[in-house]
Amino acid sequence: MSGWLRVVGLGPAGAEWVTPEVTDALASAEHILGYHTYLRRVSPPAGATLHGSDNGDELARARHALELALGGARVVVVSGGDAGVFGMAAAVFEAIEHGRPSFRELDVRVLPAVTAMLAAAARLGAPLGHDFCALNLSDNLKPWATIERRLALAAQADFVLALYNPASKARSEQAQLAFALLRQHRAPSAIVAFASAVGRADEELYITTLGEADPARADMRTLILVGSSNTRRIERPGAPPWIYTLRGTRQA
Amino acid sequence: MSGWLRVVGLGPAGAEWVTPEVTDALASAEHILGYHTYLRRVSPPAGATLHGSDNGDELARARHALELALGGARVVVVSGGDAGVFGMAAAVFEAIEHGRPSFRELDVRVLPAVTAMLAAAARLGAPLGHDFCALNLSDNLKPWATIERRLALAAQADFVLALYNPASKARSEQAQLAFALLRQHRAPSAIVAFASAVGRADEELYITTLGEADPARADMRTLILVGSSNTRRIERPGAPPWIYTLRGTRQA
Repeated sequence: MSGWLRVVGLGPAGAEWVTPEVTDALASAEHILGYHTYLRRVSPPAGATLHGSDNGDELARARHALELALGGARVVVVSGGDAGVFGMAAAVFEAIEHGRPSFRELDVRVLPAVTAMLAAAARLGAPLGHDFCALNLSDNLKPWATIERRLALAAQADFVLALYNPASKARSEQAQLAFALLRQHRAPSAIVAFASAVGRADEELYITTLGEADPARADMRTLILVGSSNTRRIERPGAPPWIYTLRGTRQA
Repeated sequence: MSGWLRVVGLGPAGAEWVTPEVTDALASAEHILGYHTYLRRVSPPAGATLHGSDNGDELARARHALELALGGARVVVVSGGDAGVFGMAAAVFEAIEHGRPSFRELDVRVLPAVTAMLAAAARLGAPLGHDFCALNLSDNLKPWATIERRLALAAQADFVLALYNPASKARSEQAQLAFALLRQHRAPSAIVAFASAVGRADEELYITTLGEADPARADMRTLILVGSSNTRRIERPGAPPWIYTLRGTRQA
């Protein structure tokens, strides 16, 4: 079997965040599969076939990629951000687990990348400088009660929170519900940041507090960061503040 | 003021994970500062000065970098992994907050990178495919009680856990204590992975269960991943298993 499958992340935006490993995989691909929006970021090698599909088709896309690799082709599946974090990698392994036994003999590798929260944090300062959670607010695939329980416990543990998918095309009440819950467990002074379209021309960063935050500011391109009790704000003359989280609770 | 400071991550190992943005910053640096081990991974441009220092000197290193930038130099501070995750970025902002007012007018940027848990997860399959926490087990800068509280709440919330710094040169009981606590909240069948020296020639991956795991396996180059109740194991003929976490609790 000479085919292989690489499940790669393109980072949140821009060529400057695509790792050389991912660039190399794309350069030798015969088939590249992904959500239309992400495929538009790829410069395919001559002769490669692009297979764009819609969001929501993850398992079908994964099976298609596995079948192509099984047929002997060099196949790349792309995600935005890191494919391993709320991306295509889990869908590929789900398809392997429930698919043909021969899928398990394929040369399948996930190539790591910069996930959205890391790029958003870098733009804002260092809010992920200490213990944090990454939580997907989409309830497409899990009950909202699970999300509420995780939010409440993470808030009680004083983790910094990175909230992925606070809104979708179809609905926007996730962020409203999440903020109502967080307000029961965290002080109104807790620092909140909305990072939208990070790395793109229309990037927007907005720093506020849990008390003042308007969840309606979040759209499907937004990542929300909620600080811990050790997240601080540094004012700057003529520039937006930086935020960062202390490296410990014993100050050095 | 023409100087600037970039706080960059080199990824966990290897040139294949260094982003083009970080490579560009290093290529125009006049001073590069970091822990000795990370500086050895850098190919400095002609004429650049390397300033290596020991682990534990983070604030002094940050202040030194800020002073150099204030003096008009192009300065890069390097971390392993992502500088924003248990790396140098938080130390730099701490130094800014408590340092000279003119530090706040400097051109300081953090450049995101691949953090250890993303590389470890990629090698193992897709264990971070759903909600997860990153927890630093070092109690150098925080009381152990805080770590225990966070571990317990994260375990109850059924997050996947990425445990950074499970052991240090000085001590190794953190992982022992953490596993004892996790066993109170998670089933013995919970999947555990030890990922050591990921991306290096001596990389080692070991997949086991919470019931069977020997915490002594962790050293200072190890990242530990503890699966959620939705983390699964895919057996393969003649190869180590893959592990991945279901994208949701409603199976698609």
